[in-house]
Amino acid sequence: MADLKLIHELLTPAQTKILLLVLDGLGGLAVEPGGPTELEAAETPNLDRLAAEGMVGLHQPVGPGITPGSGPGHIGLFGYDALRYQIGRGVLEALGVDFDLQANDLAARGNFCTVDGDGNITDRRAGRIPSERCAELCAELQKIELPGVQLFVEPVREHRFLFVLRGQGLAEGVADTDPGHVGVPPLDAAATVPEAEMAAAHARRFVEQARRRLVGQEPANMVTLRGFAKKPDWPLFPETFGLRSVAVAQYPMYRGVGRLLGMDPVEVGPSREDLFATLERVWPTYDFAFVHVKDPDKAGEDGDFERKVEVIEEIDRCVPRIVALEPDVILVTGDHSTPAALRSHSWHPVPFLLRSPTCRRDDAQRFGERWCRGGEGGLCSSEDLLPLALAHAGRLAKFGA
Amino acid sequence: MADLKLIHELLTPAQTKILLLVLDGLGGLAVEPGGPTELEAAETPNLDRLAAEGMVGLHQPVGPGITPGSGPGHIGLFGYDALRYQIGRGVLEALGVDFDLQANDLAARGNFCTVDGDGNITDRRAGRIPSERCAELCAELQKIELPGVQLFVEPVREHRFLFVLRGQGLAEGVADTDPGHVGVPPLDAAATVPEAEMAAAHARRFVEQARRRLVGQEPANMVTLRGFAKKPDWPLFPETFGLRSVAVAQYPMYRGVGRLLGMDPVEVGPSREDLFATLERVWPTYDFAFVHVKDPDKAGEDGDFERKVEVIEEIDRCVPRIVALEPDVILVTGDHSTPAALRSHSWHPVPFLLRSPTCRRDDAQRFGERWCRGGEGGLCSSEDLLPLALAHAGRLAKFGA
Repeated sequence: MADLKLIHELLTPAQTKILLLVLDGLGGLAVEPGGPTELEAAETPNLDRLAAEGMVGLHQPVGPGITPGSGPGHIGLFGYDALRYQIGRGVLEALGVDFDLQANDLAARGNFCTVDGDGNITDRRAGRIPSERCAELCAELQKIELPGVQLFVEPVREHRFLFVLRGQGLAEGVADTDPGHVGVPPLDAAATVPEAEMAAAHARRFVEQARRRLVGQEPANMVTLRGFAKKPDWPLFPETFGLRSVAVAQYPMYRGVGRLLGMDPVEVGPSREDLFATLERVWPTYDFAFVHVKDPDKAGEDGDFERKVEVIEEIDRCVPRIVALEPDVILVTGDHSTPAALRSHSWHPVPFLLRSPTCRRDDAQRFGERWCRGGEGGLCSSEDLLPLALAHAGRLAKFGA
Repeated sequence: MADLKLIHELLTPAQTKILLLVLDGLGGLAVEPGGPTELEAAETPNLDRLAAEGMVGLHQPVGPGITPGSGPGHIGLFGYDALRYQIGRGVLEALGVDFDLQANDLAARGNFCTVDGDGNITDRRAGRIPSERCAELCAELQKIELPGVQLFVEPVREHRFLFVLRGQGLAEGVADTDPGHVGVPPLDAAATVPEAEMAAAHARRFVEQARRRLVGQEPANMVTLRGFAKKPDWPLFPETFGLRSVAVAQYPMYRGVGRLLGMDPVEVGPSREDLFATLERVWPTYDFAFVHVKDPDKAGEDGDFERKVEVIEEIDRCVPRIVALEPDVILVTGDHSTPAALRSHSWHPVPFLLRSPTCRRDDAQRFGERWCRGGEGGLCSSEDLLPLALAHAGRLAKFGA
């Protein structure tokens, strides 16, 4: 597999555009032996036409048998090796609440938890307190002052919050304070490397003050922190691939992954109409648009096969709007499979279609797992798709003479 | 993918022979939506029979989306990782003119160029002077004497020439003197590593004397040099794979890549009869024959779909002569795709067939992209083919107990 550096070296200028439509959790499973998957069951005349006019295949995120989270799933689709480019838990939490992480920030995932009179944890999730309660408690903890650094405590959902320190000299290398099980007190925020001493001291000071402020607030009378991480210093997507790039997504998490890689994140209203209208508005300004639709994953996670079929059909009805934008390359796929039958992300390869005038057409007349299986794209790695899209966009020069 | 070392360790003696027939640029594209590729359009009863008796598949040179040059394309077919084993530009130029590069040689690609009165380049290719003129000027530059080293200046074509220094202590690490654009003077041949100082000094001395000798020879009144490289010290093909090997090719470049890897290069007259008669003559002496046919690539580069179909059909009519040699393994493929529709090399996977008695036959009754797509060989990497051929030749022992 080619690496980012090689692809970058092969870039050649072109006035072409690539559109990546991600149907989150697209891949599925039959609920009855021999039956159709969600995508196979869906009536998708517009996606079928793209499949017939282009090429199809299956892509494998991360590796065979590996079930990816949303982060690695997208990292792979963007052409990065998901094993090498791992997003820290704290950073992922920041992306999920649209927090604009800076280079000097150190982020961690926070949990409200319950401790007994001896300080031992009795519930690592504080009985999953309501999100409103979480917001009130975060406002209280936001009052904590830490000399020399700025503090951000942002509610996420239920017992979860985002913890961010902002200041000079905050290094990665602070150990989790969450012991991972009950019956023991939270751990000290210890530095695992000398340069993280200062950050660890700030974290300890925060935890101690949080403990005092939360006395009597059962079940949320204590906090734990884990996954301390800084914004990674990775090669950025627009520079690496020579593409002015935009991330159009309704969920902050997905805009956030795009932003982390240097794409312009665009906020979108809640409806499908909002999503595609926004795409149409920003499209002229960019060479690459990543459009994210969450619904298939949600239906899959809910175990709702019929609903997943429906949302795929709904999205299919919007496909002509994409085609009308006349992208040189259209790539439609998912970041992973979320079969309703499993009610969760899964390791199954994900169907994709790529349409461009330079495609070697295969026999697929429809878009679905069984047609993708015999397609020209074979069973490839997720990170192969972006170089393939660049090639079809006429943006990669010959390697060697 | 298995590496050269592993394959070498697994070698087991056998009295078997492998024939690799490379149809340069074999892979193609339909010119009309849903139409046949060049190979699919061609009437190839003999290749079809081999496909039906053996297995087929598609192989991907270098990586998905990557368009390989002829060098990397063949390096992959010979079982080497084309990203790791990269042939320097100077060496490639030497191969192209059949120059027998020695271990003590440092080669570079030379260009005649035009400079103005201030010494600034006005044309990096000296108006593409005729090849005859290039030969005359090279003869002039060949007269230059460089104390302590031997010099070779060989015409290539138009403004291009091969520059070789031969002597002790000539190291790689001399920077290009071609600035890559006009309006500035050629760069100094600078050493990028200390051990290349001596080579760089010789190069500078050559350039200075060339400048003096070319005064008044407009448009070819100056030279640039780039891609300084030595013959690489790679594991050789015959030793690595235990095969007495021969490269039968009409173009020096392809014999040259074979010779670089230790195969015996055999010169061939210009006709197809010459090519196959030569193969028949040398075949008894070798375990592995690489036979190279350039025509499909040429027709593809010319954008001539019909001609590409014709030459594939012509080659097919010679296939019985190959079969008559009774190789234990016959492998027929291309080094890359050259679709007439694109008039250039491309990134599309390349069809292959492998015939041996130990093949697990697939459903392919014909040789062509659409049949290869569903074949036993799947979509594999180019460098997987040689280990596969060795296995079918009974030349690889079991790995592990």
